[in-house]
Amino acid sequence: MATLADIGVSALINILGAFAFLLAFALLRIQPINDRVYFPKWYIAGKRTSPRNWGGVVGKFVNLNIKTYLTFLNWMPQALKMSESEIINHAGLDSAVFLRIYILGLKIFGPIAIAALLLLIPVNVSDGTLFFLRRDLVVSEIDKLSISNVRPKSNKFFVHISMEYLFTFWVCYMLYKEYDRVASMRLNFLASQGRRAEQFTVLVRNVPHVSGRSISDSVETFFQKNHPDRYLCHQAVYDANKFARLVRKRNRLQNWLDYNQLKFERHPDKRPTTKRGFLGLWGERVDSIDYYKERIKDFDKKLTMERQKILKDPKTVTPAAFVSFNSRWGAAVCAQTQQSKNPTLWLTSWAPEPRDVYWKNLAIPFVSLSIRKLVISLSVFALVFFYMIPIAFVQSLANLEGLEKVAPFLRPLIEWSFIKSFLQGFLPGLALKIFLYVLPAILMIMSKIEGHVAVSQLERRTAAKYYYFMLVNVFLGSIVTGTAFQQLHAFVHQPPAQIPRNIGVSIPMKATFFITYIMVDGWAGIAGEILRLKPLVIFHLKNMFIVKTERDLEKAMDPGGVDFPETLPSLQLYFLLGIVYMVVTPILLPFILVFFAFAFFVYRHQVINVYNQQYESAAAFWPHVHGRIIASLLISQLLLMGLLSTKKAANSTPLLVVLPVLTLTFHKYCKNRFEPAFRKYPLEEAMSKDTQDRASESDIDLKSYLADAYLHPIFHSFEEVELVEVRVDKNQAHVPSSSPSELSSPSPQHTYHHEDEPSHIVQHYEVEPNHTMYQYEAESASDVYRYEYAAEQHYQYYHY
Amino acid sequence: MATLADIGVSALINILGAFAFLLAFALLRIQPINDRVYFPKWYIAGKRTSPRNWGGVVGKFVNLNIKTYLTFLNWMPQALKMSESEIINHAGLDSAVFLRIYILGLKIFGPIAIAALLLLIPVNVSDGTLFFLRRDLVVSEIDKLSISNVRPKSNKFFVHISMEYLFTFWVCYMLYKEYDRVASMRLNFLASQGRRAEQFTVLVRNVPHVSGRSISDSVETFFQKNHPDRYLCHQAVYDANKFARLVRKRNRLQNWLDYNQLKFERHPDKRPTTKRGFLGLWGERVDSIDYYKERIKDFDKKLTMERQKILKDPKTVTPAAFVSFNSRWGAAVCAQTQQSKNPTLWLTSWAPEPRDVYWKNLAIPFVSLSIRKLVISLSVFALVFFYMIPIAFVQSLANLEGLEKVAPFLRPLIEWSFIKSFLQGFLPGLALKIFLYVLPAILMIMSKIEGHVAVSQLERRTAAKYYYFMLVNVFLGSIVTGTAFQQLHAFVHQPPAQIPRNIGVSIPMKATFFITYIMVDGWAGIAGEILRLKPLVIFHLKNMFIVKTERDLEKAMDPGGVDFPETLPSLQLYFLLGIVYMVVTPILLPFILVFFAFAFFVYRHQVINVYNQQYESAAAFWPHVHGRIIASLLISQLLLMGLLSTKKAANSTPLLVVLPVLTLTFHKYCKNRFEPAFRKYPLEEAMSKDTQDRASESDIDLKSYLADAYLHPIFHSFEEVELVEVRVDKNQAHVPSSSPSELSSPSPQHTYHHEDEPSHIVQHYEVEPNHTMYQYEAESASDVYRYEYAAEQHYQYYHY
Repeated sequence: MATLADIGVSALINILGAFAFLLAFALLRIQPINDRVYFPKWYIAGKRTSPRNWGGVVGKFVNLNIKTYLTFLNWMPQALKMSESEIINHAGLDSAVFLRIYILGLKIFGPIAIAALLLLIPVNVSDGTLFFLRRDLVVSEIDKLSISNVRPKSNKFFVHISMEYLFTFWVCYMLYKEYDRVASMRLNFLASQGRRAEQFTVLVRNVPHVSGRSISDSVETFFQKNHPDRYLCHQAVYDANKFARLVRKRNRLQNWLDYNQLKFERHPDKRPTTKRGFLGLWGERVDSIDYYKERIKDFDKKLTMERQKILKDPKTVTPAAFVSFNSRWGAAVCAQTQQSKNPTLWLTSWAPEPRDVYWKNLAIPFVSLSIRKLVISLSVFALVFFYMIPIAFVQSLANLEGLEKVAPFLRPLIEWSFIKSFLQGFLPGLALKIFLYVLPAILMIMSKIEGHVAVSQLERRTAAKYYYFMLVNVFLGSIVTGTAFQQLHAFVHQPPAQIPRNIGVSIPMKATFFITYIMVDGWAGIAGEILRLKPLVIFHLKNMFIVKTERDLEKAMDPGGVDFPETLPSLQLYFLLGIVYMVVTPILLPFILVFFAFAFFVYRHQVINVYNQQYESAAAFWPHVHGRIIASLLISQLLLMGLLSTKKAANSTPLLVVLPVLTLTFHKYCKNRFEPAFRKYPLEEAMSKDTQDRASESDIDLKSYLADAYLHPIFHSFEEVELVEVRVDKNQAHVPSSSPSELSSPSPQHTYHHEDEPSHIVQHYEVEPNHTMYQYEAESASDVYRYEYAAEQHYQYYHY
Repeated sequence: MATLADIGVSALINILGAFAFLLAFALLRIQPINDRVYFPKWYIAGKRTSPRNWGGVVGKFVNLNIKTYLTFLNWMPQALKMSESEIINHAGLDSAVFLRIYILGLKIFGPIAIAALLLLIPVNVSDGTLFFLRRDLVVSEIDKLSISNVRPKSNKFFVHISMEYLFTFWVCYMLYKEYDRVASMRLNFLASQGRRAEQFTVLVRNVPHVSGRSISDSVETFFQKNHPDRYLCHQAVYDANKFARLVRKRNRLQNWLDYNQLKFERHPDKRPTTKRGFLGLWGERVDSIDYYKERIKDFDKKLTMERQKILKDPKTVTPAAFVSFNSRWGAAVCAQTQQSKNPTLWLTSWAPEPRDVYWKNLAIPFVSLSIRKLVISLSVFALVFFYMIPIAFVQSLANLEGLEKVAPFLRPLIEWSFIKSFLQGFLPGLALKIFLYVLPAILMIMSKIEGHVAVSQLERRTAAKYYYFMLVNVFLGSIVTGTAFQQLHAFVHQPPAQIPRNIGVSIPMKATFFITYIMVDGWAGIAGEILRLKPLVIFHLKNMFIVKTERDLEKAMDPGGVDFPETLPSLQLYFLLGIVYMVVTPILLPFILVFFAFAFFVYRHQVINVYNQQYESAAAFWPHVHGRIIASLLISQLLLMGLLSTKKAANSTPLLVVLPVLTLTFHKYCKNRFEPAFRKYPLEEAMSKDTQDRASESDIDLKSYLADAYLHPIFHSFEEVELVEVRVDKNQAHVPSSSPSELSSPSPQHTYHHEDEPSHIVQHYEVEPNHTMYQYEAESASDVYRYEYAAEQHYQYYHY
């Protein structure tokens, strides 16, 4: 049990640690050599093309300007300079709303902390039950400030109950305001967007197979019949894993060719050579440029054949399609209505952004989807409650005696003292560490198996799973001793009324633990986030060993987006801690406030300078954030009831029963009031945007605009890549381009008409085909975790 | 504890009782005087106009044909003669699907009963644990056939578990087939219907108030803007309670006038007279016909003024409207999509049938609706678990000592021995009896407060509430002793794993009780249903004292529809009993089979000859039936797990854990697969119906057809009534009618164009305006229970 002084020391250490991180960051970020690690967003946005230079060869790598060292903390005010609307333009609505969560934390816990510290702590201290007990025996000094200090049966519990009411109302009020604000931000954002393919497009899944008819035919007939004046065109979805693998290999060869050509340009006297064998390590020595050119030619032939095969073979067309309409109204109608008598066929939903589509899951049939959901729910349950079993097994193996029994032939090795001490000291913890490290990846795989069709959705579902894991294993697991499995067993064999009592009674005792947790995981973790130590090291390592061409440099630089699957759940855990402890041990609140404030600064800086979102979901995660804060309120109320009932405050506890009912009603109301804004597209909006469009741009060829918006990655093959590149360059110079790319593809037209649109849309559509292509490749190769291939995405057609 | 012989005697008594009822029914039904009680449907359908007559004055009242007495059980084969499709035409899909529930019961429990009796009973009997115990001490002979007879830790439990699996799969298979069939019946039924107003109409609620604009204006503008090519017209909803009261009074006067005119026609020599005073008991004696004519004239003036007031005053327009579209497609789209940015405004849903609308709830705003739902949920919970508290209070008053204390002045009266014995014997039970009798009415009021907008929906919600009540107070209440409140207390203070164990262990013991319950409530109850003793008595009483005109006779005759709020829950209770006992005490199954078979005959007869549905919901109740049978399966599985765990069958019980998960998955799949057919109208269907229509009838004036389909009852006032009557008569003679009723109403046109449509639609629309009118009146008068005014509905324009 920690005393106040212990907490103070711990706080000091953590503050110093965080400060050291910040100092390191401040020094590292102004070195030109690290510029691409700390400011990649500016490179990607095309506003910076090379690191700032302080003159000379050394100045290229090290910052020689001493003045900049003196103002090393100026990133904080800088991070605040951008207004919210600028952030939305700069980084998208997702990032802007993500930052609002921290502000919401401050808004919720600021007033609560003041009220709790001024009102509750005096009430708690004044009673002083615990002063009678021996100080170092069961209680810490923190407990004297908590509800534990109040005498059983005391009337003072009425103060706590009324505070719980007051705080709940305050939280709900802030939540309501914020939900309202975010919903209207979302609608405004969607309304302010220019013409975008996803506004006109609906994803249709489970297209029925009719014998003697192709999927494309079926889709065409069905929508021409049932949406006669609105249907425009559709784009088939091909199953092209093998082709994608070939394209990826070819691109690697292309990269080697570029590298060798660059090398040759720099040293025209010496033609680079390579060996034919594995990894260029042995075999006949040949001219590199010729060799790669030749191999690329081979690949091109293979690719052409493979593509022909896919296009001709009806089996490669999956029973899904992107159906486009001639108005937003038509798409909104189709996405929200049931199409067919059999509600498991012709399932329509809003198409995700083209770059957000997760192509692999488009073809999953309805029955399989139901089974997948069941299997994954069971697996997540098992993972949350029984993950300790395999880990304990591995740990038992790591136990030396066990290991010797299992593998007696290892005995001489194990008996060697160095190996022995290594195994004993390191192995047992290793299994758990490895598990926790790969956990997000495992959860992401699970979400993928579940069959969601958009990357954004996958990330949200992964975040939900991670939250359940944290709730059970971090929150409950810290409060109730024993593994989650033991808890589950106890829960099933305890009266329901006993559970909140058992948990509630240990809540105040764990306050010091959670304070330390907030400081270590929250404060230091956030400071680590801004330092970006891992990306920094990896970037420089890659720069030394792998980066050969400009394309590789971009690849090494890519920062990825906000890591929603990990940050959202931990953020929600902090809300849970704050809400549970706001009445019980209010001294915890200032620590949470510091976390929210600090994290806000850091993430604002990161959003502005570092992250590059892979998709824009227009704050689709907000209902989850809202729902989990509501769940935190309910947990807090239940636990307080349990805690009070152990305090024999029987006459005051029933007063609390009303609160969960009110909270749930509030939640239900908010759900009805705001959630449709995140799920549906109101016809009123669609119609007014359509009317606006018709008024401003009278005759635009929507069909050709939409024709290849959701083009399957297969069509962005090697040949086109060149064409797109050319056209993009033309667009840059604002020269109208109309050269159609003649392709043997079934989709009607492949001309780009960017010249008709505002420039920011041009930018979007220039980039997009490559996005989808490389995303697809990466996914078909290794399905493990998209953060591993995020780096692959931006290496070709950004104009720097 | 009952022996097998006891059960046999009880069965015999009940069978004899049921047989006596049947005999009485057989005798009563062939008496001409009872014809309108036992065959009202044929009168309402217009296929019978007066009772069969066996000659002479006596033959008018008593059946003199002896032959018909010999064939007195021939109603059973007669009831089976009609095919299902004929029943659908004759009585609607609701009734046909209602009958299918009984068939489903037979299909489910027939094979299960055979398998259980052949396999499980030998297994149970062979073990014979209970033979060692003293026979009359704790166990009945029934128990020897049940699972109780199996030795603890026996491996025979594997037989029970595999049977539970087998039966569950069988039930699910039958449920799946039935859901599939009902869903397609529903779609076919909807597709086979002719043009009906509800197909083109959407109910819009929560129309926002814009200052300086009327609701009608807002609706017109909004839909013209957002559904430009499809919007046709709309009909406002008026708040007209006072007006309806006046109309009702006027109709009563009209009835008196008719009566007096009839009297005068029969005896032209004597002009009827009446007194001016209260109820015609005193005051000046005047000529009746003149008097009533004069009073009606007065009323007409008042009504005209009141109507003018309502039409002019914008405050009487409620923020709801029926919006009609020019195609089913347009209506389907509008009903399924979100209209406005604010999802609590412009709420659209399918319009119920005109005669199904519950007008009073149309104007409830969104926030109020949320609060109402919360309040009613809490009330239902309180009612289910705490209803014994007020009843116990009343009973304690009925306790004589208590009564004397509360009201000492009553002492002399109470001490009188007759009163004393009456009070002691009768009063305590009376409170409970009265409560159970009015319970459906109370639940209906609750559903009305909840704010549902269709009568069919009100009945479904009432049925749900009644089911919860029966589940807790009949099923659980009989198994676990003590009141529901005590059970609730025990549940909260017991480990969750203990609850199924506690209930499960007493399940086999209660088998005899439930067998008796099935015989008394099921067998005898159904026989009572066919006898229709209450309607018989009431009809003859009314005939003697109240009936003055033909209109009154119709009123007295009206049989109402199937009483869904009471029959569905008790039906579901029988499913629950059968499913819970199928593995535990299979001897109960034959009793349930007899119930289903018998009830099927009786209800088939009633549906054909008696009931007259007030609305057609196209089997909208099916998802509830399906869901509750699934719930029964889950309850059965849980209780079996509990039961087995008390039998120390620890090695077999875990095998059962998978079953609830599988059952839930099946339910979820069915929900996704079939439920949309009951909630949404697929665009494919709508479009094909629209195309059909356009092909068959090229130019129909849809606007005028729809203009007054959802006319608010206010417009069907006294003046129109006459006009409609005239037109209806004209239609009968197939003479085109085109006399427009010129009214000072805002709705554009009021002509009837029935001559363009097939005759069965004519019939529908002829009747409907009056329907809505009288329904409205009745509801605005006394809100208690719609069965009380159901009798009011058909007294004017059916053509018999």
